[in-house]
Amino acid sequence: MSDKVVGILGGGQLGRMLASAASLLNIQIVILDVGEDAPAKQVLASSKHIDGSFKDQQKIAELASQVDVLTVEIEHVDVDALDAVRKSHPNVEIHPAPETIRTIQDKFRQKEHLKKHSCPLGEFMSVDPTPDSIKSATEKLGLPLMLKSRTQAYDGRGNFLLRSLSDIDNAINALGSGSRPLYAEKFLPFSKELAVMVVRSTSGQVASYPVVETVHKDNICHLVFAPLHIADAGLCKRAEEIARNAVTTFEGAGVFGVEMFLLKDGTITINEIAPRPHNSGHYTIEACETSQYSNHLRSILSLPIGSTTLKVPASVMLNLIGVSDSMEPIKSVCSKALEVPGASVHLYGKKDCRKGRKMGHITLVAPSDAELHDRLRPLLETLPSSSSSSIDQEKERQNEVALYTPLQPSPTHSHPQPLVSIIMGSDSDLPTMLPASQILTRFSIPYELTIVSAHRTPARLYSFAENASARGVKVIIAGAGGAAHLPGMVAAITGLPVVGVPVRSSTALDGVDSLYSIVQMPRGIPVATVAINNSTNAALLAIRILSTADPRLLVKMEEYMKDMEGEVLGKVDRIQEGGWGNYEVKKH
Amino acid sequence: MSDKVVGILGGGQLGRMLASAASLLNIQIVILDVGEDAPAKQVLASSKHIDGSFKDQQKIAELASQVDVLTVEIEHVDVDALDAVRKSHPNVEIHPAPETIRTIQDKFRQKEHLKKHSCPLGEFMSVDPTPDSIKSATEKLGLPLMLKSRTQAYDGRGNFLLRSLSDIDNAINALGSGSRPLYAEKFLPFSKELAVMVVRSTSGQVASYPVVETVHKDNICHLVFAPLHIADAGLCKRAEEIARNAVTTFEGAGVFGVEMFLLKDGTITINEIAPRPHNSGHYTIEACETSQYSNHLRSILSLPIGSTTLKVPASVMLNLIGVSDSMEPIKSVCSKALEVPGASVHLYGKKDCRKGRKMGHITLVAPSDAELHDRLRPLLETLPSSSSSSIDQEKERQNEVALYTPLQPSPTHSHPQPLVSIIMGSDSDLPTMLPASQILTRFSIPYELTIVSAHRTPARLYSFAENASARGVKVIIAGAGGAAHLPGMVAAITGLPVVGVPVRSSTALDGVDSLYSIVQMPRGIPVATVAINNSTNAALLAIRILSTADPRLLVKMEEYMKDMEGEVLGKVDRIQEGGWGNYEVKKH
Repeated sequence: MSDKVVGILGGGQLGRMLASAASLLNIQIVILDVGEDAPAKQVLASSKHIDGSFKDQQKIAELASQVDVLTVEIEHVDVDALDAVRKSHPNVEIHPAPETIRTIQDKFRQKEHLKKHSCPLGEFMSVDPTPDSIKSATEKLGLPLMLKSRTQAYDGRGNFLLRSLSDIDNAINALGSGSRPLYAEKFLPFSKELAVMVVRSTSGQVASYPVVETVHKDNICHLVFAPLHIADAGLCKRAEEIARNAVTTFEGAGVFGVEMFLLKDGTITINEIAPRPHNSGHYTIEACETSQYSNHLRSILSLPIGSTTLKVPASVMLNLIGVSDSMEPIKSVCSKALEVPGASVHLYGKKDCRKGRKMGHITLVAPSDAELHDRLRPLLETLPSSSSSSIDQEKERQNEVALYTPLQPSPTHSHPQPLVSIIMGSDSDLPTMLPASQILTRFSIPYELTIVSAHRTPARLYSFAENASARGVKVIIAGAGGAAHLPGMVAAITGLPVVGVPVRSSTALDGVDSLYSIVQMPRGIPVATVAINNSTNAALLAIRILSTADPRLLVKMEEYMKDMEGEVLGKVDRIQEGGWGNYEVKKH
Repeated sequence: MSDKVVGILGGGQLGRMLASAASLLNIQIVILDVGEDAPAKQVLASSKHIDGSFKDQQKIAELASQVDVLTVEIEHVDVDALDAVRKSHPNVEIHPAPETIRTIQDKFRQKEHLKKHSCPLGEFMSVDPTPDSIKSATEKLGLPLMLKSRTQAYDGRGNFLLRSLSDIDNAINALGSGSRPLYAEKFLPFSKELAVMVVRSTSGQVASYPVVETVHKDNICHLVFAPLHIADAGLCKRAEEIARNAVTTFEGAGVFGVEMFLLKDGTITINEIAPRPHNSGHYTIEACETSQYSNHLRSILSLPIGSTTLKVPASVMLNLIGVSDSMEPIKSVCSKALEVPGASVHLYGKKDCRKGRKMGHITLVAPSDAELHDRLRPLLETLPSSSSSSIDQEKERQNEVALYTPLQPSPTHSHPQPLVSIIMGSDSDLPTMLPASQILTRFSIPYELTIVSAHRTPARLYSFAENASARGVKVIIAGAGGAAHLPGMVAAITGLPVVGVPVRSSTALDGVDSLYSIVQMPRGIPVATVAINNSTNAALLAIRILSTADPRLLVKMEEYMKDMEGEVLGKVDRIQEGGWGNYEVKKH
């Protein structure tokens, strides 16, 4: 534990969440920000908070004189003032290091730094805010061209996507009329935006949180899904490595948010890095063993870094962005959230609501991706909208739902977030496998159903099995007949549990060929084999398997078994009361 | 959402955690307690907090004049003052209702109330604080006899266990020298103490959190394990029902803590009820979808009650109780907790540490009971101790570990918190089943191993299968030969996944008899069958099954598969380089 006093430059929502984390550890915090009721000052009563700007040299020095460690919740601070503090208060630690903040707060310098350290980046170059310089950049990097202010840019402010040369004057005007330094980035059409939070200790060791998918709307962080599920088995490991390597190159301790692009060809480039807790790490409060806020404090105080592991199967963060001066639309979505299981509302206590202002966020946790999307849908349906017409609002909400929480197209189409994958070697196996789909539907288990033939589509078999767990699939049910290689080959490639259904495809061996082909696997690779043609039991087994992660399914299974018992006991009564002379046996 | 202002009588740790929950919802809170820095006042800056006692009528009225809803974090408030507020401030809601607090704060009245409503209770009776009255109580309720103060009693203060008649004078002295009203309870030797947190809405609906096991030390709450795992399949449902029924009988909204005894014969009696968030519900902050604090606020504000579901597989709360005036021993265990994955430290910011004072708590979460105990052990090993001699401290700590986190007696004895249960029909199956145990050991999966014979111990089979999931077992591996009924019969009784190993017990049918007996289960009851005699694969399948709940196991399984691949590729090299003439095939 630590008795050091921590000073934070900035008292917004990140400072507020840092202050809440600090109070749990009895860590004394002093906030520097303008006003008596900055969000962070509200959650930690202290007569020592300082009223002033985090860009004010004198105020920063005043803060330094009261604390043992200085840190930031925003990178747009006065780094010269931090340098001055380093001289005037040599005993005050500053995290991250002022030179780290200086490098990062100038996005062009940040890119140069990352390039020097061989981090993966898109092409970029310096430009002057003049038509000639920009034109020459388009000749090198092509059109469209991303023009960015080097400094004081966040939430998309300071970015201009130049689509044609005729827009150059507009761009210069939008980006400060030539008064602010710019640079240019090659426009990269990405398939997803990713982020990884990284904690760096005072001794330079780094630990990373899981890879998340971030979704931006009007250039502001909108949704963060954790963990990322995608059909690329090695992607998350790669993204985490890139993020850790990048953060290793900076000096000083703390949490860093690494934002990345996943390009359409599967490569990852770093977009930008924040030297502080980050919007894409809010989810860690409810979803991880240690929050990014707790870990930021631990790291800057040289305390042990806490576990960055997810403690829930799925989570999503929804930002609550003001759409007008009215707080009412935000309150509506919060009210809806109180009805949704697994939702935690975080309001930041900001006095005034404004369009584009971050007023709060909601974190949802759920036992599966599918349930997470079901929980998110009603929130997107009540999402604040800045449209004035109610028709446009309705359209915007429908669009949100269609984009991020689409419904299954029909009950006999694959679910977008399947927990179970039913595969079969041939379409002729479909009638045998349909009872499995009916059981999964009855238990409301999201599943997909498709054909994967070991012998006719071996490449598809390999990539299916290789990527299944990365997509979020938890159990595979594979049906095959004759020389039934599908279940065993899938089990040889994935580490997931594979349930094998021996299909009685020819009468030659009555399905015993399929059974032996599936059950007699060599030591090392198990297939959970059920009875010949009994896909019902395969699905029931898949549900029992899933119940190890979701105890509610065990309750449902026990009810199902009670129902079966009741049915048979009903027959006992019928045979007892009506006698067996007239008893009619019903076929399934 | 609600714009109502909430006043809280009491500003201790429960008020502090209520205040933190309130800040997330922008709910304005006013705290009434003595001093400027009561724990609750520290985490919610407000100029409106009132400095005064929660027993002071005038201060309570002052609080009422500032708020819309009054609630309590302690039941020892002045109920007459609340009644007065009801008249003077008719628009202020009071939750729970003053008559509820009045009933509950007098433990004898509380018992009478519960008895009137047919809640299960041990025998009790009123006694006067006189030798005659107490003697006559021992004649009715026997010795030892539990004597309790009716009011102002908590954390064991106000309790006296009378072991013999010669102690009556001591008892009277200890319990207020005849100045305080007493009552007597029949002494019930219990096997466990249980608790259930119940939320009651303003409309009288109740929702319950999971049953937890509470462990007291020196009469103060020491450990709380959630959820309860015990070899009694129906117990948790029963305990939750009893708790909900009891809370239904009280008026007003809020969270109630219901403490219960589980007697040795399996019956449950209510010990006592707290009309507020409770120490046995601290774990809900990190472990449940909604914390008891958030739900207390939601319920008293007529907002929707949040989901009370656990979001993690296992959790435990460890109270940090002062052992002296020094905070150092508490800080030591907190420092240790920072090294433990899944640990969250909560310090309450109390200015002075004292022996017996609740200074904070630590909540641990983990993916399994076994891992939870492994994480708890180092904390118990650094537990603050009030013994002055270091030998006694060491003994106390060893005793704690032996009681609550005992180690597996040896690698070939059953683990105390098994995730997998290996059972076999006969000891003759042991050699066939041993490879399963070796695989589970290699993957560090906690398991038990025993004999359950379907044909020779059918009653044991039934109770084993019925209670397995209640004990926390997640997967059963059952090996049997010949007319192999064990796996299928177990699967017919439990909803857990059952992996069947056909044992080749006689040479008559080469194990095909066992295979068919296990795999050809009727529709409705699946057994995950592996190859004949291949218990290795049964264990590997069990691990794949467990990986659906614990993704780290999937990573380990993929490494295992990579190792196997590497071994075979090594043989490829050997046969390539040395030629196949001298190649020697190694037997397993």
